[in-house]
Amino acid sequence: MDLTIALEKLDELQKKMYAYGAANSALYLDSVTVAPKDTSEGRGVAMGILAGEEHKLFASPETGELLDCLESNRDKLDARQARQTELLRRSYTQLSRIPADEYMEYAMLTNEASDVWHRAKEQNDFELFRPVLEKLVAFNRKFAGYYDSTKAPYDALLNEYERGMTMEKLDAFFAALREKIVPVIRAVGEKPQIDDGFLHKHYPVEIQRKFSDYLMEVMGLDRAHCGIGETEHPFTLNFNSQDVRITTHYVEDSLAESMYSVVHEGGHALYERGVDPQNDYTVLAGGVSMGIHESQSRFYENLIGRSRPFVHAIFPRIRAFFPEQLKDVDAEMFYRAVNKAQPSLIRTEADELTYSLHIMVRYEIEKQLIGGTLAVGDIPAEWNRLYKEYLGIDVPDDKRGCLQDSHWSGGSFGYFPSYALGSAYGAQMLRNMEKDVDVWGSVGKGDLSPVTAWLREKVHQYGSLLEPAQIVENACGVFDPTVYTDYLTEKYSELYGL
Amino acid sequence: MDLTIALEKLDELQKKMYAYGAANSALYLDSVTVAPKDTSEGRGVAMGILAGEEHKLFASPETGELLDCLESNRDKLDARQARQTELLRRSYTQLSRIPADEYMEYAMLTNEASDVWHRAKEQNDFELFRPVLEKLVAFNRKFAGYYDSTKAPYDALLNEYERGMTMEKLDAFFAALREKIVPVIRAVGEKPQIDDGFLHKHYPVEIQRKFSDYLMEVMGLDRAHCGIGETEHPFTLNFNSQDVRITTHYVEDSLAESMYSVVHEGGHALYERGVDPQNDYTVLAGGVSMGIHESQSRFYENLIGRSRPFVHAIFPRIRAFFPEQLKDVDAEMFYRAVNKAQPSLIRTEADELTYSLHIMVRYEIEKQLIGGTLAVGDIPAEWNRLYKEYLGIDVPDDKRGCLQDSHWSGGSFGYFPSYALGSAYGAQMLRNMEKDVDVWGSVGKGDLSPVTAWLREKVHQYGSLLEPAQIVENACGVFDPTVYTDYLTEKYSELYGL
Repeated sequence: MDLTIALEKLDELQKKMYAYGAANSALYLDSVTVAPKDTSEGRGVAMGILAGEEHKLFASPETGELLDCLESNRDKLDARQARQTELLRRSYTQLSRIPADEYMEYAMLTNEASDVWHRAKEQNDFELFRPVLEKLVAFNRKFAGYYDSTKAPYDALLNEYERGMTMEKLDAFFAALREKIVPVIRAVGEKPQIDDGFLHKHYPVEIQRKFSDYLMEVMGLDRAHCGIGETEHPFTLNFNSQDVRITTHYVEDSLAESMYSVVHEGGHALYERGVDPQNDYTVLAGGVSMGIHESQSRFYENLIGRSRPFVHAIFPRIRAFFPEQLKDVDAEMFYRAVNKAQPSLIRTEADELTYSLHIMVRYEIEKQLIGGTLAVGDIPAEWNRLYKEYLGIDVPDDKRGCLQDSHWSGGSFGYFPSYALGSAYGAQMLRNMEKDVDVWGSVGKGDLSPVTAWLREKVHQYGSLLEPAQIVENACGVFDPTVYTDYLTEKYSELYGL
Repeated sequence: MDLTIALEKLDELQKKMYAYGAANSALYLDSVTVAPKDTSEGRGVAMGILAGEEHKLFASPETGELLDCLESNRDKLDARQARQTELLRRSYTQLSRIPADEYMEYAMLTNEASDVWHRAKEQNDFELFRPVLEKLVAFNRKFAGYYDSTKAPYDALLNEYERGMTMEKLDAFFAALREKIVPVIRAVGEKPQIDDGFLHKHYPVEIQRKFSDYLMEVMGLDRAHCGIGETEHPFTLNFNSQDVRITTHYVEDSLAESMYSVVHEGGHALYERGVDPQNDYTVLAGGVSMGIHESQSRFYENLIGRSRPFVHAIFPRIRAFFPEQLKDVDAEMFYRAVNKAQPSLIRTEADELTYSLHIMVRYEIEKQLIGGTLAVGDIPAEWNRLYKEYLGIDVPDDKRGCLQDSHWSGGSFGYFPSYALGSAYGAQMLRNMEKDVDVWGSVGKGDLSPVTAWLREKVHQYGSLLEPAQIVENACGVFDPTVYTDYLTEKYSELYGL
């Protein structure tokens, strides 16, 4: 094949993959935001077929030939083309090992599972979810073998979310975290608790919606290219760098819930919006890994969003939205309330300090599930045991226990560690950023643009052009989780006077 | 090809077409309800590619062979399979005449046009819309030739929306309408006008949303299978019989606008929901023609929704939603207000009596545009001239003139007559229904179920299994527009005491 033709075909293939991705995203976005309740069947049929078509298109001998041709011309490719070829080869090798019928079946299963899980959670009925979760685990154990049969299954899955990540590395990482964080949590527990009662007054959804608009504005999210929707479990979705959507979930008696959800998802969105548009419609579009993605979302949510300078800067505006509810509250009280640390049941509502322990519970369970040493039916008991052991609390029911997260219903096993890794990456990024930019001077004035500009330069612009490890090196230097634990220790020592 | 295999392939082909249709619908629905403003480019790329893939799939030699095989086994096919083959052959013949690149280009053009038209309307700037409208007209003139080169281009397009419809038939139909309706309009104009001021008080959107929920309930629309969204120009979209969406547009100073939009779109939705689910994922799914579709929507909107028994039945509930705004209003005043007849500028806000004249304006313009005797640049002048001639009013600007409708931006030329035809079909259906069912006894109690049951039996259940003409025969008998003009004459004579 002539290289000029091959390059055209490369472009065309990626555009088609983008189109199938956009179709899937639109169907998914609809399903979790506005679709009527009992409509998953027909959507599942469509998503299954489209997945099959995409699989047929991509995992075809023609793609193999195209990649062969590009690889044999590697020295003539520019950096983007070379990286596209590399990423496509990686997916091709993987995907062509998954038989098309299994791929389609899996696409339909995850659509069904999402529905079943919603109902199971609503009805607090793990047994309802169990059969489909069993199928999802079985598929993922099988897929792990397709991905890399030389690795332990869970390592093969971890590698999907964060290339090069292994249980060995994570075990060490989490052990270090536990060793440093657990004593701080204990010490905090012995101090008088912070009063956050005012965060749980009545906050009408209508005004919270306007407050979200304001938060997006502060974050510098251009509303002509970034929408906001409402869903049960917030997420960010990107069609391309010019079309990104965040979602949130309003709770009338909890101001912080949607507030920090918007800032978290806004962090994801800024990443997607900051990717060089040259990468659109190619495999280089979008964030490079879940760990890097969570480093951005949690950066805005916690390192910036829960910082004293940020809270003090925007508090007058917050009070303008909710004058009645916050009439006896000042900026410092608000700052302390949104940083109240306390072992709790729900991951997404957890404070910055105890958050990683929630992740560790899930990590331990996934390790065993995918390793084959834990049966799906035993998840609830194991979940409750680990919450008792790690966080010292009793789980009253599965709804607030092992049914709380959407990840497994979406087929994501190996995603959770990304949250903790991302948090740790973020702390290192902050320390490096502080060397280059007057972070707190700007944030204290409610101006996040220098922060975003730094992240755009070090992280966002590349999309998937660089490996996650290169991004980490770029923005963090050598990975060192003690920067994160030091950050937490310092912050919470000051807050609680330890 | 073995017939068993052919029937499997028939099934598979239709499921794939359904899947591409669902993808397109999800992208479209998103684009006009929640998508951020400046995101059409990426969506256009995706929609163009998906259209191209669908075209490649369908307009392939394999489809031709499959249809040949099915046709040569026609005596062994059941009624559904035979009709599927017939409809697929029709589309195949058409589509395989449109080159794939033109088909894709057109898909991208309509996506772009929608965006441009929105802006042009917003800015009251026809010149902004002109270049893309010119392209759309040129495409449709070309497509008309592909569809049926033996017909006049506009006849070929009309045939797409209502099989067998021609300019000759429509000219006669509209002439009959004008002859009967114009004198009634004139007589009404000489009478004192109805006071509908209370419909234009302040009606908060939040409460209008709850009112929509109530209206959908009255109509018997199951919310687990029928959603409601908000958009500029309301429409109904069906993914399948179990997943239908209506949309509406809330105007804070006009209660009737969204109210009758919901009832109109609800009529479309009841049709889609009533199609035998056996037809899902096949070409038999969904309403058979735009004329029949509009007969259903306008049936609920006008013949039922604007009838005295219906308005009197639901008025106590309407007043419960808006007690302040309607405190001095009674059911009869409300009935009269929503039936106020007056020549006006905006089609979608037009009353039942003058509505057809709005359609005639569009029909005349389309006839000339597609016929090649009117340049796109001359539309505004011709529009304004016809509004003066037919409705006796001056059009102040293009925003409220030729830029008001979305149809042309979506590439629909030949759709408009369906509204008038549908209204006429509906009047005949009503007269026949009255023979079988105690229509007004039920409607007067707010119970529409016997009405819907009758329509389901005569119209809805078939989906596209029967030709539009067969449905008309089923439900109307011999088409006779005087039933419609008699209905209007009678209703407005009573209302205005002519």
